[in-house]
Amino acid sequence: MDDKTYNIEIIEGGVTAAAGFLAGTACAAIKKAGKRDIAIIYSSVPASAAGVFTLNRVKAAPVLLSMEKLAAGYARAVVVNSGNANACNGEQGMDDALAMAAEAAGALGIPEGQVLVASTGVIGKKMPMEKVLPGVRTAAGQVSPDGGPLAAQAIMTTDTYPKEAAVQLELGGKRVIIGGTAKGSGMIHPNMATLLCFITTDASVSPACLKRALKHAAGLSFNMITVDGDSSTNDMAVVMANGMAGNKEIGDEGRDYIYFTEALTIVCTSLAKAIARDGEGATKMIEVKVLGAATDNDARLAARSVAGSSLVKAAVFGNDANWGRVICAAGYSGAGFDPEKVDILLGDVQVARDGGSLEFSEEQALEVLKKSTVTITIDFKSGGCSATAWGCDLSYDYVKINADYRT
Amino acid sequence: MDDKTYNIEIIEGGVTAAAGFLAGTACAAIKKAGKRDIAIIYSSVPASAAGVFTLNRVKAAPVLLSMEKLAAGYARAVVVNSGNANACNGEQGMDDALAMAAEAAGALGIPEGQVLVASTGVIGKKMPMEKVLPGVRTAAGQVSPDGGPLAAQAIMTTDTYPKEAAVQLELGGKRVIIGGTAKGSGMIHPNMATLLCFITTDASVSPACLKRALKHAAGLSFNMITVDGDSSTNDMAVVMANGMAGNKEIGDEGRDYIYFTEALTIVCTSLAKAIARDGEGATKMIEVKVLGAATDNDARLAARSVAGSSLVKAAVFGNDANWGRVICAAGYSGAGFDPEKVDILLGDVQVARDGGSLEFSEEQALEVLKKSTVTITIDFKSGGCSATAWGCDLSYDYVKINADYRT
Repeated sequence: MDDKTYNIEIIEGGVTAAAGFLAGTACAAIKKAGKRDIAIIYSSVPASAAGVFTLNRVKAAPVLLSMEKLAAGYARAVVVNSGNANACNGEQGMDDALAMAAEAAGALGIPEGQVLVASTGVIGKKMPMEKVLPGVRTAAGQVSPDGGPLAAQAIMTTDTYPKEAAVQLELGGKRVIIGGTAKGSGMIHPNMATLLCFITTDASVSPACLKRALKHAAGLSFNMITVDGDSSTNDMAVVMANGMAGNKEIGDEGRDYIYFTEALTIVCTSLAKAIARDGEGATKMIEVKVLGAATDNDARLAARSVAGSSLVKAAVFGNDANWGRVICAAGYSGAGFDPEKVDILLGDVQVARDGGSLEFSEEQALEVLKKSTVTITIDFKSGGCSATAWGCDLSYDYVKINADYRT
Repeated sequence: MDDKTYNIEIIEGGVTAAAGFLAGTACAAIKKAGKRDIAIIYSSVPASAAGVFTLNRVKAAPVLLSMEKLAAGYARAVVVNSGNANACNGEQGMDDALAMAAEAAGALGIPEGQVLVASTGVIGKKMPMEKVLPGVRTAAGQVSPDGGPLAAQAIMTTDTYPKEAAVQLELGGKRVIIGGTAKGSGMIHPNMATLLCFITTDASVSPACLKRALKHAAGLSFNMITVDGDSSTNDMAVVMANGMAGNKEIGDEGRDYIYFTEALTIVCTSLAKAIARDGEGATKMIEVKVLGAATDNDARLAARSVAGSSLVKAAVFGNDANWGRVICAAGYSGAGFDPEKVDILLGDVQVARDGGSLEFSEEQALEVLKKSTVTITIDFKSGGCSATAWGCDLSYDYVKINADYRT
């Protein structure tokens, strides 16, 4: 991801940064009264669209509905609610998701098939449709080009801060913007369903290319973060591209596709890291880089396993320079490597060489461990492939948040 | 596992319960001075033997050595130390493991090839051989038929209690005993390497049948427990069978094999459950039963995933009747099932039906959750296969134990 080569500039903004995208929100009392809990993200012109969805066998109704709608490759709006995941609600759940789409479509004056639905919140509770539908109407009535920041708030559950990211780049002489918002893993409520991400761009991209680009970006971002290893019933990331930038449509995997995909990956990675840093109870972010792997898959498996290890996470929380736990987590990851070649660094302090112990300065290691981002680098010295994963430390507050809600 | 059918009787005792098995221990100051940290388990006559070993790519030297020795199918002794895992020590680690076996073999007067080696403790520290070898000699000089309980203590690291189990049964008119000891997942030290299990029996069993029986038993016991999802560099379970019971050798998969395997499974399950209950920081054990699955594999995947979910574990710690987390963890387990058929029970309180919510008494659920063993039953209603997994809750103490060791 070399943003120098491509001149990708990080800018302020989120889902309404790109031309032609509006957002509106409402407080519908699905969450606590007075909190924003409905958002509509809307393109003023038709847009191609793509999504990636949870692999959990238990998929919430809005996930199933949006998957089906995106098969066509086009969508102009997403209606989102927080506070209720609309998961494990049987047929009623699907009826409610359909009703949300219909309500938004009617209020926006676009076909129902063009409206995606997303929900996040408690699992297994019926949707309070008498609150939801008026909220959808209110939000649709308030869509504006300045609506992005409020939309970022409206999709939060117990995230401690809203998450937005945007970049601009030039494609064939035209300025293109990609912006997005996401919400993460605050699961204070008993059964929260977690990751949602919405990205908009004024680039012109064919549905097939958009889907491929999103898969690539998600593979390097959302699929490389872990907070507690539990992947939810509601996870989805959606991108809409409305072409208002006026660039020549990206329809093959040429230079523009590569450039666009790099920029999309930067937006997704920025949002994914914000989610990892805001993991429940987290006091710091952990960045795990695996270098020198024989294959990309080996690098990814090992990086994710180390970032997800409870023992590594607890050690980072406790400022313990615990490389034995790092090599152990790489070892059970399924990644191929030679244990006797592995080097491990905490920040820039080498703590293991050739899979064995090494004299190092505990003081310097402690300094690294006390930073708000702790980088662990693992070099397999067996090839040219690498991967990076992000997680957070495991603190008392994680247990507190997830144990004590009702007591 | 119907021990009624086979008349398998649970008895007192551990690794020296079976005829002809002796154990000796020593305090070699590998752990704190005065703590037992060396054990030798020894058969006074030749024995067939089998083992199952960690799948972690990073395997400690004693694991690699014992795997190699067991290829022949025979072993008469195991020498074990706690306090140092002898993992990630390069060639020196293998030399040290070989030296332990040689020392024990010399002192016991048996061939070196008949002595297995196991270690548990800190990863990445050189073995203090000047303490280990005299300890091995002392332990070998003290082997006795009453040595089992002290051996169970000597292999502990931060386990809070020793773990032993034994059964007796009749095979072809002969009384057979199977006994064992195990140590689990106390990882207070920075990089502890965990599960060890040693089982002895006076049954006569061919090496091939013994190996098959152990694999079966381990699949239903040690492979169905989870404390934190981190599988160590040193895990091993070994069984020795010396034939002193005088039964006709079990050489095929007939009735005696089935009977013996059931009894072995009872011993392994008892030890595995003791390890789960004694998980770091655990305040209670979680037993997850999956019923009605289409395949055994579906049942096992789902049971292990639920037992290992941080969110489920934290909810059990906090007495929260959180069925949404249970179905979510089953959903990402890889198990096949129809989400709209799933029933979930906490103890005998049904909390979900057909994958959806259900009115239930919070009071009754709370009573179940406050027990020292919390049983979660998941019925897929899709077939005749089932599985049970065991874990423990996630408490503040887990984080404390694993974060605060050096601060």
